[in-house]
Amino acid sequence: MDNFDFKNPTKIIFGKGTEARVGEETARYAKKVLLHFGSGSIKTSGLYGRVTASLKAAGVEWVDLGGVKPNPRLSLVQEGVRLCKQNGLGLVLAVGGGSAIDSAKAIAMGAVIDGDVWDFYLGKGEPKAALPVATVLTIPAAGSESSTGTVITKEEGLLKRAVNSELIYPVFSILNPELAFTLPPFQVACGAADIMAHLMERYFTNVKNVEFTDRLLEATMKTIARMAPRALENPRDYDTWAEFMWAGAIAHNNLLNTGRVGDWASHDIEHEISGIYDVAHGAGLAVVFPAWMKHTLKNDVARFAQWAVRVWNVDMDVWNPEATAREGIRRLEAWYHGLGLGTTLADLKVGSDRLDEMAAKCTDGNKRTVGNFVKLDQSAVRKILELAR
Amino acid sequence: MDNFDFKNPTKIIFGKGTEARVGEETARYAKKVLLHFGSGSIKTSGLYGRVTASLKAAGVEWVDLGGVKPNPRLSLVQEGVRLCKQNGLGLVLAVGGGSAIDSAKAIAMGAVIDGDVWDFYLGKGEPKAALPVATVLTIPAAGSESSTGTVITKEEGLLKRAVNSELIYPVFSILNPELAFTLPPFQVACGAADIMAHLMERYFTNVKNVEFTDRLLEATMKTIARMAPRALENPRDYDTWAEFMWAGAIAHNNLLNTGRVGDWASHDIEHEISGIYDVAHGAGLAVVFPAWMKHTLKNDVARFAQWAVRVWNVDMDVWNPEATAREGIRRLEAWYHGLGLGTTLADLKVGSDRLDEMAAKCTDGNKRTVGNFVKLDQSAVRKILELAR
Repeated sequence: MDNFDFKNPTKIIFGKGTEARVGEETARYAKKVLLHFGSGSIKTSGLYGRVTASLKAAGVEWVDLGGVKPNPRLSLVQEGVRLCKQNGLGLVLAVGGGSAIDSAKAIAMGAVIDGDVWDFYLGKGEPKAALPVATVLTIPAAGSESSTGTVITKEEGLLKRAVNSELIYPVFSILNPELAFTLPPFQVACGAADIMAHLMERYFTNVKNVEFTDRLLEATMKTIARMAPRALENPRDYDTWAEFMWAGAIAHNNLLNTGRVGDWASHDIEHEISGIYDVAHGAGLAVVFPAWMKHTLKNDVARFAQWAVRVWNVDMDVWNPEATAREGIRRLEAWYHGLGLGTTLADLKVGSDRLDEMAAKCTDGNKRTVGNFVKLDQSAVRKILELAR
Repeated sequence: MDNFDFKNPTKIIFGKGTEARVGEETARYAKKVLLHFGSGSIKTSGLYGRVTASLKAAGVEWVDLGGVKPNPRLSLVQEGVRLCKQNGLGLVLAVGGGSAIDSAKAIAMGAVIDGDVWDFYLGKGEPKAALPVATVLTIPAAGSESSTGTVITKEEGLLKRAVNSELIYPVFSILNPELAFTLPPFQVACGAADIMAHLMERYFTNVKNVEFTDRLLEATMKTIARMAPRALENPRDYDTWAEFMWAGAIAHNNLLNTGRVGDWASHDIEHEISGIYDVAHGAGLAVVFPAWMKHTLKNDVARFAQWAVRVWNVDMDVWNPEATAREGIRRLEAWYHGLGLGTTLADLKVGSDRLDEMAAKCTDGNKRTVGNFVKLDQSAVRKILELAR
């Protein structure tokens, strides 16, 4: 186990009807906030009305900024930064899924600097301060509700880049599983694939003696593996959504990678796909991960076999751990298929004509590798994309 | 799953040599602190010297208060409160195990009030403020390093009582597994029993649909079940201690009881034993828990069977879940025995003459029940003590 620091200060407010508490919680931090959301669905669902009623009751004013799209864009972030500065707003409240939250985090960092927030995404400097961010989560998927991360896409060049900073842990996140009842099935499936990916990225590590976090990760993977098909079958089952939503937050809150080094190559590769083709992040991960696994399996067959046995209930073939591992990958693919997700680039309607370009962008023209479990150069990324065709 | 709020702000600094960071971390909060510890073992081991060197280097002054004993006493707490007030100390730094930390938390609450801190332990009022508490952990056991709890014994009447408050989450806790290398085997065993008890108290709940936290608890129980005998066999194995120590902190940091209601009767009953007889808390728990299980098994045989199968690798007897459950209890007892702990009051040299008195004190003369999984009145507690003879 590696040395580590761990602190996650996000206050989780979990359960039925908890969005009614957003006003009182927000008022602890600011009396004038940016209310940031995506499409109009929170208005038609009534959530917008309940959130603003709670803000009003607590004496909190707000400025609306809707229009966040999946793979949230820099231009809207910059609009949000302008609104915060012009109106002296003191907190960014995201109501939505990972896209709204990631966009809110970017705005929160941009609102307190003179320069361009995109610089942080390019690795030029680190944020030194940020407005507080808070969330009302509607989609269990990205884990951004209690994470340090934000991923933004710059339209020009379709560059998708991430920032991680403890400054953007949300100060509170409201998780009401009921808000997920009305999600379209495709979004449920993509959310489950995203959560599973967060767990697998952390699981596949070269750090030895990480049995405790292995087991916590397996526990969380088993929960998502069981709950995702149940949520599709019975979308109004509170108990299923409660397990799904809480597991989704824990999957990405950094507890589960304490003392270990995650991989994250599959995320990097997927960002190139969804940056260009604007496919849903979870759908892209369902394509990349099995291909990544087939490419990296030999790096640690025992670890893949343990995963297959403990998460997917594969019988351990002690004379053939590799067959055990490969059966695990097959069950992961079958799980994706059961959720209605494809596992090939063809399923995403992504052709083969830009694979070279994606492999090059992913590795900055072979100037860097991606991944830690196996360090992948441009040609290795190209091979994985090939395996994913 | 029940609605819940969860926030754990303790910064964990984990790994080899991390006590060298105590000065810089302390200096963020105060320049003059109470250094609180137990016996002189931290002086002979060199830890005291390393901690004070780090404080000195960071420009932090300290006042020493050693002498904390297992089942920490109110009189020393009151001495600490006096020292903090007289010297204007701004933080209480515990170097030690759960006793030093619990005592430090009591001092931190007492230092900011005019009245008697014991009132909080009697349930008269709640703390409104506290000095920051920080810890350098030497014994993985109590979980106090990232918990809201403190248990103190008042010498007069040997009353042992607890307070829980978010105000006494340590601001940081330094966990260096190397510090556990020199623990006496009996203390290792008691620590393991205490951690296992924290997990079992949370596991046995009547709240339904808590599969995710069930699995996290099982993951943590399996880790402790495996690591404790290994730590006794090979006390200088860093990797074993790292898993043990991190699992011990997570076991009690409130994440694992999110959305569920723990039981805690075994802790209450054990507090009466160790309050009177001054036995080690972990050793007392190893006696109480099997008896409690035999008494409460019928309340939810399925839950006991799940625990037996998933934690203790018992084969599920689908035609006889109760036999499966009972085999789990036998394996728990065997695990205690393997650690060198007894499982009867006779093993603790506790006679039968004061069982009535303990049952009465535990339930305030039958004016209250203890436990949530099964609510136990005075006669039920008496029965459990009888089963434990």
